[in-house]
Amino acid sequence: MSIYEKPFEKAEHAKRVADVRRRMRAAGFDLILCQDPANMCWLTGFNGWSFYVPQCVLVHVDEEWPLWFGRAQDAKCAQVTTDLPDRNIVPFSERLVQHKTEHPYDELVGLVQSRGWAKARIGVEMDAHYYTARCHAHLTKGLPNARFANNGDLVNWARLVKSPAELKLMREAGKICSAAMNRAIEKMRPGVPQNQVVAEIYHAQTVGVPGSGGDYAAICPLMPVGEGTSTPHLTWSDAPLPGNALTMLEIAGSRRGYHAPLTRTIHLGKPPPGIQDVAKAVVEGVDAGLAAARPGNTAEHVEAVWQAVLRRNGLKKESRVGYSVGLAYPPDWGERTVSLRPGDQTVLQAGMCFHIQAGVWLKEWGVAISESFAVTDSGGDRFCDVARELIVIA
Amino acid sequence: MSIYEKPFEKAEHAKRVADVRRRMRAAGFDLILCQDPANMCWLTGFNGWSFYVPQCVLVHVDEEWPLWFGRAQDAKCAQVTTDLPDRNIVPFSERLVQHKTEHPYDELVGLVQSRGWAKARIGVEMDAHYYTARCHAHLTKGLPNARFANNGDLVNWARLVKSPAELKLMREAGKICSAAMNRAIEKMRPGVPQNQVVAEIYHAQTVGVPGSGGDYAAICPLMPVGEGTSTPHLTWSDAPLPGNALTMLEIAGSRRGYHAPLTRTIHLGKPPPGIQDVAKAVVEGVDAGLAAARPGNTAEHVEAVWQAVLRRNGLKKESRVGYSVGLAYPPDWGERTVSLRPGDQTVLQAGMCFHIQAGVWLKEWGVAISESFAVTDSGGDRFCDVARELIVIA
Repeated sequence: MSIYEKPFEKAEHAKRVADVRRRMRAAGFDLILCQDPANMCWLTGFNGWSFYVPQCVLVHVDEEWPLWFGRAQDAKCAQVTTDLPDRNIVPFSERLVQHKTEHPYDELVGLVQSRGWAKARIGVEMDAHYYTARCHAHLTKGLPNARFANNGDLVNWARLVKSPAELKLMREAGKICSAAMNRAIEKMRPGVPQNQVVAEIYHAQTVGVPGSGGDYAAICPLMPVGEGTSTPHLTWSDAPLPGNALTMLEIAGSRRGYHAPLTRTIHLGKPPPGIQDVAKAVVEGVDAGLAAARPGNTAEHVEAVWQAVLRRNGLKKESRVGYSVGLAYPPDWGERTVSLRPGDQTVLQAGMCFHIQAGVWLKEWGVAISESFAVTDSGGDRFCDVARELIVIA
Repeated sequence: MSIYEKPFEKAEHAKRVADVRRRMRAAGFDLILCQDPANMCWLTGFNGWSFYVPQCVLVHVDEEWPLWFGRAQDAKCAQVTTDLPDRNIVPFSERLVQHKTEHPYDELVGLVQSRGWAKARIGVEMDAHYYTARCHAHLTKGLPNARFANNGDLVNWARLVKSPAELKLMREAGKICSAAMNRAIEKMRPGVPQNQVVAEIYHAQTVGVPGSGGDYAAICPLMPVGEGTSTPHLTWSDAPLPGNALTMLEIAGSRRGYHAPLTRTIHLGKPPPGIQDVAKAVVEGVDAGLAAARPGNTAEHVEAVWQAVLRRNGLKKESRVGYSVGLAYPPDWGERTVSLRPGDQTVLQAGMCFHIQAGVWLKEWGVAISESFAVTDSGGDRFCDVARELIVIA
């Protein structure tokens, strides 16, 4: 038995790299450096929890295969998880890890020079989470004759339309997410400590569903309770769930790193008057958005039809109602490309995937009921299947 | 019931900030910006999964309290989790999130200017995981009269010696880690899918132990199997555990973000000859290291005594045998300060905490049996309590 089953064929990676090289030519780059772990994985298959040290994938317009550059102890992980030829796997010296004056990217400079790319037009991911100011400083200092520019998340944009193999994983992620959400709802009762509910979510996310084991999600389960629902990123405590409170649950299923996120709103105890009507309007708005999520329509159009439904129900809109999703690593499951918001004129294509994070806030309470979906010819096709309503636990 | 129970008294944060301001004066900084989420939390108490967008804590030498700067929707989280006065909580505009040309740090520039700090000597965390090249570019461009320098992880160094309240959380994290490790060992049997074991670990990490619920760990459970043990950061699959293989398990318990990591080596089936002797030598080496982990000894001395035990047993050393641990957020639970390795002459003090990640690799297999501990007058005091031997599951 192999120690690692690759989720994609070598040919699929080759196609992705070819597409990226076309985009590089159009954008005027000879070489791009990708430190976003999702970009590294999408290009080469590289997969491991090593993104806490500097590492990257290099794509050159004239080279068939990318180069992997990373810590020596992770080179084996690159051999196991990618189809790269051994000569394209380039480790840096262990002693450079957390060194005060030297840096792993000093050796990356040497690699770029050794390939004859010291005067290249190099595109870097200026705002990728792990591309630190120090990475950039060592790189630009070491390559004074190169022309550096922000590559504008070129690979993130290339990831936007998913392949059939990717869509299969997204659907499996949706099933995992549904199972975890339903398990959480089953477990949530007044008096149950919050962390007990979150423990069940982690368990269900990881076990997955028959035939599809789960992977770690890019964001921990978020479950604000009561007043906490007004601050979305507060994490759980070990306090018991109250007998009368609003809670929101935002989680994702992850299958081979592909994420399908979902939000549901749960009321413990008798819900306040009016909240059911708002929940209905939110679901109606999501349905309108899903119907509009067809090839040829724009991202901002999806937001506009959602907003129109809210307006008709006398409700207040939010300006960004969703974002592109797919392959992701901590700390975020968004792809940092398309937003479903006014001004985003990206034209939708079949195979794009989004999280429509539909929420409405009134003075005292709010309702969020979201969906993850793929754009298809007949509209947005949902990945998850969880009750689409305000969930009341009396 | 309050929605958030703060883990520390206001006075403890005041003491930490005062210490940091002393260090800033000594290092010649007027102002430091801290984007490392652990530094943000340690200084102010701020705690939420919001580190995927630019945010930071500002400390000025002449100001009693730091400033929190972050996304508008996370300002409430700052109000709830910190004791900062409202005027010290400064949100940036939502529209700047993932904006192509503008950046949240353009508004940070405005904040620094409005306080009269535009010509300050500003120390930034050049290599903190989320301080991207673009954060730095917008900041330095917007403040051309400031003098920028790397602050050399000044706050990480200030975090090195833990207070009694922090040590209490570290000990609770150790108990959580022990429970999760024992649960995993109980669950590991030939034929059990890897992800089922990991699901139990997540569950146990989150449930915690009576009186101490668990929080998310900064690294997912790492459980390399068979040949995978030679690449430490490969994550789990849904393949069944084999009947005859080496596995290693590296996990942490996290209590209010404080981490106690632990590694154990498990052999499924009859272990190869000699491995028990190596396991004994590793534990003996750790014991020697623990005995040496007393105030006044250096970090490199701890490594040297560990190494001497290995040498006496005819085994090969590794050069870095451990690192400082404490408060941490994804993607890493190390503090990026002291390493137990040759050349690190940091003098140990009571209250420092380390993970002695003791491992030995032979040609065909290896053994890693680690401990997390606090430096005390009588040596390293372990946080966890799990069988200290090669664990054989026949």
